[in-house]
Amino acid sequence: MTLEEIGSRAKAAETKLRIMETKKKNEVLKKAAENLIANSDKILSANAIDMENGREKGMNQGLLDRLLLTKERILAMAEGLCQISELEDPIGEVLEMKKRPNGLLIGKKRVPLGVVGIIYEARPNVTADAFALCFKTGNAVILKGGSDAIASNQAIVDTIRTTLKEMDAPEDAVQLIMDTRRETTEQFMKLNRYVDVLIPRGGAGLIRSVVENSTIPVIETGTGNCHIYVDETADLTMAVDIILNAKTQRVGVCNACESIVVHRNVIEKLLPMLSERLCEKNVEMRADPEAKAYMPGAVDACEQDWGKEYLDYIVSIKTVASIDEAIEHINRYNTGHSEAIITNDYTHAQRFLDEIDAAAVYVNASTRFTDGYEFGYGAEIGISTQKLHARGPMGLLALTTTKFIIYGSGQTRP
Amino acid sequence: MTLEEIGSRAKAAETKLRIMETKKKNEVLKKAAENLIANSDKILSANAIDMENGREKGMNQGLLDRLLLTKERILAMAEGLCQISELEDPIGEVLEMKKRPNGLLIGKKRVPLGVVGIIYEARPNVTADAFALCFKTGNAVILKGGSDAIASNQAIVDTIRTTLKEMDAPEDAVQLIMDTRRETTEQFMKLNRYVDVLIPRGGAGLIRSVVENSTIPVIETGTGNCHIYVDETADLTMAVDIILNAKTQRVGVCNACESIVVHRNVIEKLLPMLSERLCEKNVEMRADPEAKAYMPGAVDACEQDWGKEYLDYIVSIKTVASIDEAIEHINRYNTGHSEAIITNDYTHAQRFLDEIDAAAVYVNASTRFTDGYEFGYGAEIGISTQKLHARGPMGLLALTTTKFIIYGSGQTRP
Repeated sequence: MTLEEIGSRAKAAETKLRIMETKKKNEVLKKAAENLIANSDKILSANAIDMENGREKGMNQGLLDRLLLTKERILAMAEGLCQISELEDPIGEVLEMKKRPNGLLIGKKRVPLGVVGIIYEARPNVTADAFALCFKTGNAVILKGGSDAIASNQAIVDTIRTTLKEMDAPEDAVQLIMDTRRETTEQFMKLNRYVDVLIPRGGAGLIRSVVENSTIPVIETGTGNCHIYVDETADLTMAVDIILNAKTQRVGVCNACESIVVHRNVIEKLLPMLSERLCEKNVEMRADPEAKAYMPGAVDACEQDWGKEYLDYIVSIKTVASIDEAIEHINRYNTGHSEAIITNDYTHAQRFLDEIDAAAVYVNASTRFTDGYEFGYGAEIGISTQKLHARGPMGLLALTTTKFIIYGSGQTRP
Repeated sequence: MTLEEIGSRAKAAETKLRIMETKKKNEVLKKAAENLIANSDKILSANAIDMENGREKGMNQGLLDRLLLTKERILAMAEGLCQISELEDPIGEVLEMKKRPNGLLIGKKRVPLGVVGIIYEARPNVTADAFALCFKTGNAVILKGGSDAIASNQAIVDTIRTTLKEMDAPEDAVQLIMDTRRETTEQFMKLNRYVDVLIPRGGAGLIRSVVENSTIPVIETGTGNCHIYVDETADLTMAVDIILNAKTQRVGVCNACESIVVHRNVIEKLLPMLSERLCEKNVEMRADPEAKAYMPGAVDACEQDWGKEYLDYIVSIKTVASIDEAIEHINRYNTGHSEAIITNDYTHAQRFLDEIDAAAVYVNASTRFTDGYEFGYGAEIGISTQKLHARGPMGLLALTTTKFIIYGSGQTRP
């Protein structure tokens, strides 16, 4: 099928999805969950093919683990669909309806975006998840998954499309682009006529390529070079606990702490305790000269360290003379994700919240909380590090837009 | 100055604008209005140069009129600044603040977008207007105006920058790109490191070029192929009045009606009245064969007419057999701007509101109301025909984003 056909089918499906009742959408999601479980064997066989090809190609262990499906992982996928079926449907709500002086009643109605394109890597679990989030919000979705997961993705999409047909819902609510050539992906990124928004899900390289090549509006989910600034008045025990949590609770995630910024007046007390705890967890410490003097085992940080998202057991440590210097340093090197201050100073707390330019700014808490579930959205499409449309953890609302609806009684413009 | 320098200066200004008090912002805007009036002579001399160059280049009358400044137009520009100074400042409001089960207090704070880029044609009034809207919302703005208005734009920007300096506010809150070469504009569209959003203001060609070339997120303000559908049960007198208003009250605007869709059962009664009134206003009528039979003076419509934004005294007329056919036709040809139904049927009204995919959907009112002032926003940056971030008339809120602020007391993630 050509991209043109795929686009046109998605648009046709969208006109039905736009007005589908919530009850029906939820039933489809639950049935799809059932069918994924019922089709486990077929999906696992398809995944076995992908895994074998991956091993032959010499994919590394981390990538192979992301590609792997198991009975348990399919159950988790199905469970995800059921959870999404239970969330409140945001579509149809009317906001800010007001009567204008001329009698026009004007409100904003929450509606689907239309056709969503998702470009992702070889993680088959994204396939079911992306469909469910888009379907719940009345969007048709076109998936372009990594070529290494093509058999797994096809098996999952087949199961969902069969479910849609069985439930008398438009099958083209989900389509998978089978042609995994780079040229095709680049054409897909320019399919403005049919696709309303493109969401890349994956590593920095994938995201950069979509941002640079797409003419369709993109929601950028990005990297996190997250800082924790320990202020002069911080509770130092709290600071150590929070840093340890943010750095080591899970290292490979975008909301993990990558850099510690410390006020000069507390380095003597804080850093020895901190380095001991970081050493216990085998965290490599890269410090500036002032900090290094109080951190046994630390090595010298270089300029590149300040801008680095390690995603590993490594952290950089920067000494500053004031909160101004801390804010300036963080605003220079942060990637607009999550930033925290540990302080007991009211003014400094408020200044940090006001002046730091990032999607989530914390006082006295771990950056690891930046997450759709932790923020209470019940689902997460990703964490936006751009400023347009959605910023920070994105729940179902990020897949919606509004349109103005206007009730008149014959009004004309004077 | 290089684009890199301009970008870096804008970012530096933005950190101050982000936290500037509303009172100060309003004072600057009022002072800038005063200074524009005080500098009228200088601005008019600069404009005279642009006008002379324009005439020499053979610019057409419409473009020359848009380029022209007069004492009155400068007064209107200054008045615009004062009006914006009086609007409520959206920055700093905290939305949806909630306490999570773990005690974290999480809210969304409304903040500036950061650095806004505006690319526009030779309309010097946009210069002051764009500055005021961005400044009021705490954004730094980089302007790239049409080369034909360069002297006028420079005189206006100089006046504003002098005001900023005089008021001890960052001068780089507004910068004008003086290099009007195409390559420079294309580089500007890829200045992601410094610019958070790009807003093109102008004709379809300009907008398409920005959408296709920009790697920065774009807010697309678009064209309007707006329809009015006259349903079977419409009050036909109301229908004629609304169509006349939407077509002829002002023809060169994006919310003007370009196409009339009529239910077959009313063509015999409606179209003779309508064609008489349209003829009085010298509107050329391009009708399908069924409609043409009842419209003396109409000519044959061809396929191209359905997709056309005439921006002129021309209208197309399409006959349909049902509301379904009307919805399908409109969703096929509309540009996502403004669409209206004239009906007295409750179900049809609701279906039209639900099923038509456009920024503004009307029942029994003229499409000409799609406008920031008419919708009660007090200002307008443009009318978005895309779905991300902002849709329909954009007021000050469209120049803002939110960031999550989180108050903790030592929370770590389990």
